Amino acid sequence: MKRKWRLGVISACAIGFIASTAHAQSPAEKVYVPPGKHDEFYAFLSGGFSGQLSVYGLPSGRLIKVIPVFSVNPENGYGYSEETKAMLMTSHGFIPWGDTHHPELSQTNGVPDGRWIFINENNTPRVARIDLRTFETIEILEIPNSGGNHASAFVTPNTEYITAGTRFSVPIPQKDVPIASYAKNFKGTLTFIRADKPGKMDIAFQILVPGYDYDLAHCGKGPSYGWCFYTSYNTEQAHTLLEINASQKDKDYIAAVNWKRAEQCIAEGKYHVMKTEYYHNYIPDPEGDRIAVSEVKKEVKVIIPKECKGVLYFLPTPKSPHGVDVDPTGEYIIAGGKLSTVLPIHSFSKMIKAIKNKDFVGEVDGIPILRYEAISYCEVPNPCLGPLHTEFDGKGYSYTSCFITSEVIKVDYKKCKVVDRAPTYYAVGHLMIPGGDSAKPWGKYLLPMNKITKDRFIPTGPELFHVGQLYDISGGKMQLLLDVAEIGEPHYAQAIPASLVAPNTIKIYELEKNDHPYVTKSEEEAKVVRKGNEVHVYMTTIRSHFTPDNIEGVKVGDTVYFHVTNIEQDWDVPHGFAIFGAENAELLVMPGETKTLVWKPKKPGVYPFYCTDFCSALHQEMQGYVRVSPKGANVTIKYGTGEEMKTAK
Amino acid sequence: MKRKWRLGVISACAIGFIASTAHAQSPAEKVYVPPGKHDEFYAFLSGGFSGQLSVYGLPSGRLIKVIPVFSVNPENGYGYSEETKAMLMTSHGFIPWGDTHHPELSQTNGVPDGRWIFINENNTPRVARIDLRTFETIEILEIPNSGGNHASAFVTPNTEYITAGTRFSVPIPQKDVPIASYAKNFKGTLTFIRADKPGKMDIAFQILVPGYDYDLAHCGKGPSYGWCFYTSYNTEQAHTLLEINASQKDKDYIAAVNWKRAEQCIAEGKYHVMKTEYYHNYIPDPEGDRIAVSEVKKEVKVIIPKECKGVLYFLPTPKSPHGVDVDPTGEYIIAGGKLSTVLPIHSFSKMIKAIKNKDFVGEVDGIPILRYEAISYCEVPNPCLGPLHTEFDGKGYSYTSCFITSEVIKVDYKKCKVVDRAPTYYAVGHLMIPGGDSAKPWGKYLLPMNKITKDRFIPTGPELFHVGQLYDISGGKMQLLLDVAEIGEPHYAQAIPASLVAPNTIKIYELEKNDHPYVTKSEEEAKVVRKGNEVHVYMTTIRSHFTPDNIEGVKVGDTVYFHVTNIEQDWDVPHGFAIFGAENAELLVMPGETKTLVWKPKKPGVYPFYCTDFCSALHQEMQGYVRVSPKGANVTIKYGTGEEMKTAK
Repeated sequence: MKRKWRLGVISACAIGFIASTAHAQSPAEKVYVPPGKHDEFYAFLSGGFSGQLSVYGLPSGRLIKVIPVFSVNPENGYGYSEETKAMLMTSHGFIPWGDTHHPELSQTNGVPDGRWIFINENNTPRVARIDLRTFETIEILEIPNSGGNHASAFVTPNTEYITAGTRFSVPIPQKDVPIASYAKNFKGTLTFIRADKPGKMDIAFQILVPGYDYDLAHCGKGPSYGWCFYTSYNTEQAHTLLEINASQKDKDYIAAVNWKRAEQCIAEGKYHVMKTEYYHNYIPDPEGDRIAVSEVKKEVKVIIPKECKGVLYFLPTPKSPHGVDVDPTGEYIIAGGKLSTVLPIHSFSKMIKAIKNKDFVGEVDGIPILRYEAISYCEVPNPCLGPLHTEFDGKGYSYTSCFITSEVIKVDYKKCKVVDRAPTYYAVGHLMIPGGDSAKPWGKYLLPMNKITKDRFIPTGPELFHVGQLYDISGGKMQLLLDVAEIGEPHYAQAIPASLVAPNTIKIYELEKNDHPYVTKSEEEAKVVRKGNEVHVYMTTIRSHFTPDNIEGVKVGDTVYFHVTNIEQDWDVPHGFAIFGAENAELLVMPGETKTLVWKPKKPGVYPFYCTDFCSALHQEMQGYVRVSPKGANVTIKYGTGEEMKTAK
Repeated sequence: MKRKWRLGVISACAIGFIASTAHAQSPAEKVYVPPGKHDEFYAFLSGGFSGQLSVYGLPSGRLIKVIPVFSVNPENGYGYSEETKAMLMTSHGFIPWGDTHHPELSQTNGVPDGRWIFINENNTPRVARIDLRTFETIEILEIPNSGGNHASAFVTPNTEYITAGTRFSVPIPQKDVPIASYAKNFKGTLTFIRADKPGKMDIAFQILVPGYDYDLAHCGKGPSYGWCFYTSYNTEQAHTLLEINASQKDKDYIAAVNWKRAEQCIAEGKYHVMKTEYYHNYIPDPEGDRIAVSEVKKEVKVIIPKECKGVLYFLPTPKSPHGVDVDPTGEYIIAGGKLSTVLPIHSFSKMIKAIKNKDFVGEVDGIPILRYEAISYCEVPNPCLGPLHTEFDGKGYSYTSCFITSEVIKVDYKKCKVVDRAPTYYAVGHLMIPGGDSAKPWGKYLLPMNKITKDRFIPTGPELFHVGQLYDISGGKMQLLLDVAEIGEPHYAQAIPASLVAPNTIKIYELEKNDHPYVTKSEEEAKVVRKGNEVHVYMTTIRSHFTPDNIEGVKVGDTVYFHVTNIEQDWDVPHGFAIFGAENAELLVMPGETKTLVWKPKKPGVYPFYCTDFCSALHQEMQGYVRVSPKGANVTIKYGTGEEMKTAK
């Protein structure tokens, strides 16, 4: 008996230990990544009004990188160095800022493959490609015939295309017409951009559509492969006070584009060539000279739907729909509705059937409008107010963000039934599940991105970081784990297991492959050359000195080009370069890379330069001087490291 | 018996629960801040080559704000809006980038008071003041006669001054001389800037010093009140290949400045007035128009040490000293030494005694050099290699970072004894304890800021975030808690309890106090006015529309000023403003604030603008259009929100 009790004691305490192990699954333990361990997922959050792309680790919620895309980045000289300036050129000039909304990973067979991530710019319409080996922007394409590139950049299942729909309709081509002539003169476009080859982005075609506001998009997969879907609002075609005037109709449309049909029409010549001008910026030699170039393109192929029957249908959808999200099977299409009290699920197979049966209730500009009931799979009863966006966990559940009621609902979408709901703080916009818009979601975590922060963090004055909230969705109920502080304004996000990206990342650029025209591969080759009023400094950096570190013979009126090659070939040994008084940003030069900073000295004197990125115990000693003589002085270029200075040939 | 065992069971499990509570003190639990709870400390980390100041919460390690200081910030229009452009003006023109190193909180009686934080810019020498009610930069002062403002911005105990020492000596005043004439022609300066009144920063005086590299500083307190201390290296006065040539001497100097004595010399007229030019940029009316202005200053008072006896002494200090840190009592002065194998502690009282006894071993330019042994309190035996920086916990211990051996040592500095050591990953630079350089450290946490990241996070290509490592120092041994991912390159940091800052932060700007010359306080007052080729748009934003949202009559060749007033008076409701094709950044306009964006339309057409910061369920509808007519067109300004448009008077 005694012994039995003893066992009882052990058993009770064993339960205690189990409880303790369960305790190890506290939210704190679930998000904690111990020093020396790594996060499980990369999460890519758009920067919104920052114009950049932010990289976080999950589950820690740590910001681990800001990738400069559409905005200049003084921190590393993006947009300031001669090598990167071309990236931000547009047909409207050099633009230092952008508004990024929707990152989208490249896909193979509908599954994110970790090669690239794309992202849109809304204000001056563009899309960008980021290489996930280097986490650098390597390509930007401007989109003509667009005013506000919002429904972008969403991929087709093999990254054949990324697509881009116009949020603000404009006269196409642009012309000076009364704003009140909106309904007559303003149009939208849905653009398909070839995206499967880096450096080769190109507009395959645009589809001219009625002057609505096209908001978001997702492309089909599985049975719906070959189609893309775009929400629209303002089918009222209001041009002023849209908050009232574009909220009149009970239903607006989802535009369903058959891009395989569009390809046929292009092949059959059913398109118009429109003269226009737009920029394609890219790095032709990303392992070599790494210098961005701009090409100016001059025309685009435009399909008019009524001339290409079957390319486009309108799906009535309540009310001012925002998100449009296709489930992993490709059959179910869930639409948000900013002002909607229902959550409609469309059926792709019913849509095809309705098209076959010509089950139309009308048409606009030759575009058939399908009958709502004919395409509707169901309306989820009692969802929430203001459903916006939906992602999928791959286990048969969808998660929809609800702006007005500040919550996320979990839906068994085949059964058309809400099974869980969780409050968010506050006013949730987009939400993200790793792989959650793909054919094979990884699930596990949910990250709603909220629009109001208020009291979530210690206060920082009127301007606050945004807040995302990380949930564990591996169980039946959503469990709130962490408030994640977000830089910029994340609109949408994507996440992918670190194991699919990390092994392909590179640590250095190979100096041997560097064929920059101003590369300096060894200290012996370092030199300074005058060409008229230009002075070219071929400079090397290595722990812990510049070669040359003393330069004389520069004059006021010269333009000095510092071509700095970091001849290190070790991981995590960048050097920085800055010079006193430069009306420019610094350079941050990675191992094996050459970057160029322009400096126009204004006054005679001796000016220091230095390494801006702590590199060694003697980093503080990594400095040099340029002597600047008056304009017109009769001086010769001299340079060196050490007491002996060379005279330029 | 049975009953007794039952109690035994309960008791055993109670122990289990106690163990479980102890388990709550795991590193995971220690750094976890549950959703809805707040961090205990604000930590302010310099951005280094980002030019900004980063704000983190501790213990979570979350980045919660980036405060734009010396670099443009496209994200919120800092440096792009008409109201902020003046902040980045210098005597060398508009400079879009800076290199921030050392943030320092304002102090009262030697204790951080949470009013302001100051930070230096190294490249184009400047210091800035950030208001901790708004977390905004409200003042920037350029520092003349300086090349590299590194030993900066450190405060005196009542924020009488912030001080600034030159890292790179230059000809003073600047002139076209051979670099090889360094020893003869190059000088440094130690600058004292009046800092106790916002908007009134001014250079009280500069002290002209030998041409060494002045590296870091800290000012005295308690008995050493009235003194500031600056490390120097390159007392060899090398001008090339400093990594070798500036590492020759066994000892360099700490410069000890008696600023009370300097004040006397100024009062007695023992100074020179030097003509020079430098900018003072500030917001004269931070609650009203909030428009930064630039003043150009023309002269500065310079003290030459040999003409002001007692103002400056040199303290020999091994070897290429970097940090200089004064303990909370003000008696002990601990110096790092980048190449040092010892950790020297100087005694302030011994220094005073040595001065009294004229215990000098020589002089430089009339500056007495004290005898090392006469000022030395001790050399800590067996410290580490490359000791750099020291902070204090207020309990009698100092913590010193060691770059070469990648570790932190904890020292009982009065006993001159290492009591604990912990490895850091990798190559630690600065380190920070909340209040750790003040008279009353809060202790509790230690944050070393490491210079190499390598494998601490999932990789992001060649360019990596930096890593800080958070330690718990509340026990006897340092306990590593968390790898903190850091934006930019944090050099130094400061932290303060949230309770000393948060209650003073403001949530909105009061519209009533807004006296911006282009403010629009109600929609009725919104208007558009042409003045020659300038078009001024007096615009309001409120959820969810602009007034006006339609504008016509603008012509190619016009310069359009959008003066956008956010008439919201609710917390956390900013609006953004961007217009298609602007060669500019967006505006992010806080409640009650007016900001101005300049736009020069290039081609006729109709161009959309929109709110860039999600503000309501109908944020997407918050848009408008500007019609642009050809240059020279005979058109009249019209504007409105709604079908009726007004004609400009």
